[in-house]
Amino acid sequence: MRVVRYERKGKIEHGVWTEDGIHSLSGDLFGAFSIGGEIVPPEQLRLLSPLRPNKLIAIGRNYAAHAAEGGKPVPPEPLMFLVSPTAVVGPEEPIRLPNREDRIDHEAELAVVIGKGGKNIPRGRATEHIFGYTCGNDVSNRVLQKKDGQYTRAKSFDTFKPLGPWIETDLDPSDLRVRLEVNGEVRQDGRTSDMVHSVPVLLESISAVFPLEPGDVILTGTPSGVGPLFPGDQVRVEVEGIGSLVNPVTG
Amino acid sequence: MRVVRYERKGKIEHGVWTEDGIHSLSGDLFGAFSIGGEIVPPEQLRLLSPLRPNKLIAIGRNYAAHAAEGGKPVPPEPLMFLVSPTAVVGPEEPIRLPNREDRIDHEAELAVVIGKGGKNIPRGRATEHIFGYTCGNDVSNRVLQKKDGQYTRAKSFDTFKPLGPWIETDLDPSDLRVRLEVNGEVRQDGRTSDMVHSVPVLLESISAVFPLEPGDVILTGTPSGVGPLFPGDQVRVEVEGIGSLVNPVTG
Repeated sequence: MRVVRYERKGKIEHGVWTEDGIHSLSGDLFGAFSIGGEIVPPEQLRLLSPLRPNKLIAIGRNYAAHAAEGGKPVPPEPLMFLVSPTAVVGPEEPIRLPNREDRIDHEAELAVVIGKGGKNIPRGRATEHIFGYTCGNDVSNRVLQKKDGQYTRAKSFDTFKPLGPWIETDLDPSDLRVRLEVNGEVRQDGRTSDMVHSVPVLLESISAVFPLEPGDVILTGTPSGVGPLFPGDQVRVEVEGIGSLVNPVTG
Repeated sequence: MRVVRYERKGKIEHGVWTEDGIHSLSGDLFGAFSIGGEIVPPEQLRLLSPLRPNKLIAIGRNYAAHAAEGGKPVPPEPLMFLVSPTAVVGPEEPIRLPNREDRIDHEAELAVVIGKGGKNIPRGRATEHIFGYTCGNDVSNRVLQKKDGQYTRAKSFDTFKPLGPWIETDLDPSDLRVRLEVNGEVRQDGRTSDMVHSVPVLLESISAVFPLEPGDVILTGTPSGVGPLFPGDQVRVEVEGIGSLVNPVTG
């Protein structure tokens, strides 16, 4: 199932995108919902980020080649931190660069959407708690990231967390290609099978510390190839089995 | 005005504690609300944390003497990071220590509750955005804090963020005594006038990065004197003009 979010007649709703078109969804996305009969042609809608996350949890250095390019060791346990959910934007929305003199990088990531909350989730039961997957771009100001040591500020500016274009609910996350292009040129090209800590391990580790809740989103780390963005760029994150998240970059 | 939160007849409500007793409050705490005529005797209620925060923003090393005791420099700009709002507990609720072999410290703090959201709030208008103040204890696992570098995990375990006992809305935060006792023995005793970055500056700096929203809470940093907690301890955080937040520590 491919779940989208959009504005129609002044109301924000979720919908399911099928071969026929988009069927609106009513009820609780993470609980009981029903899918309407009416079909809306996708070309009449502008897609929004598929959700505004509750907690937005990011994982640092979860691909060995990316840790190496940053000159840092691979963390023996998942390195978790939180970023502000207010930074989320949807497909086609601009990534705005404040502090343009700083180096601000793209980071293509598989994003996991939690459907069912839980504490101390064993890795073997992780999939029961996952609603689906989307593409994420963990845009990061490298100057502030280094200056602060803490990553929250560098990664929480408005528009720094594009998510989308939709949530794919039927997907095995263990070996997916994760690519990123800037202006049509490939910059990142990795596979989720190269994650240091797999998706089920991430859920186990995070939920050993604090509860995961419906609507939480986990950004699972980025493959190697991160690089700077400039105004005028067009960035495309593509995760196999999901689709492409495209955002222009502005000043 | 002293705003409390409690459970009564199976419902969680906010109330205003006056000399007569507690008057229940209906409506939106951060918007339009009314105060009821009925008076509930405080001894019939168990107070909860005065809110479950939306974002829970913490500030690192905001008192020079505390930065020095940790052997770290004072950050030239406010060092902001996010912790999980799920870690919040109220007055008298136990602080539970997992990983008991690790050093787990208390940190007494003035907590600021945001009432009116905003982006790019100038320091001169900060008070318009503040709903009130409460006491906080930023309990921290020092072993994980050092191991991760990122502070989120070390500070986000369940029960690690006691807040309370209530929100005091009429208070000047610029020069308040912040004390902490363990088993009646004074461990921390500072004044908010010793903050490196004052409360208005914190609002300005944070909101320059991401919007502050109603219900966000800022933990403003801890004075010197942090030290370990052990099962059986009783911790009291006292902020002048607010009151005392007491929590037992369990294993």
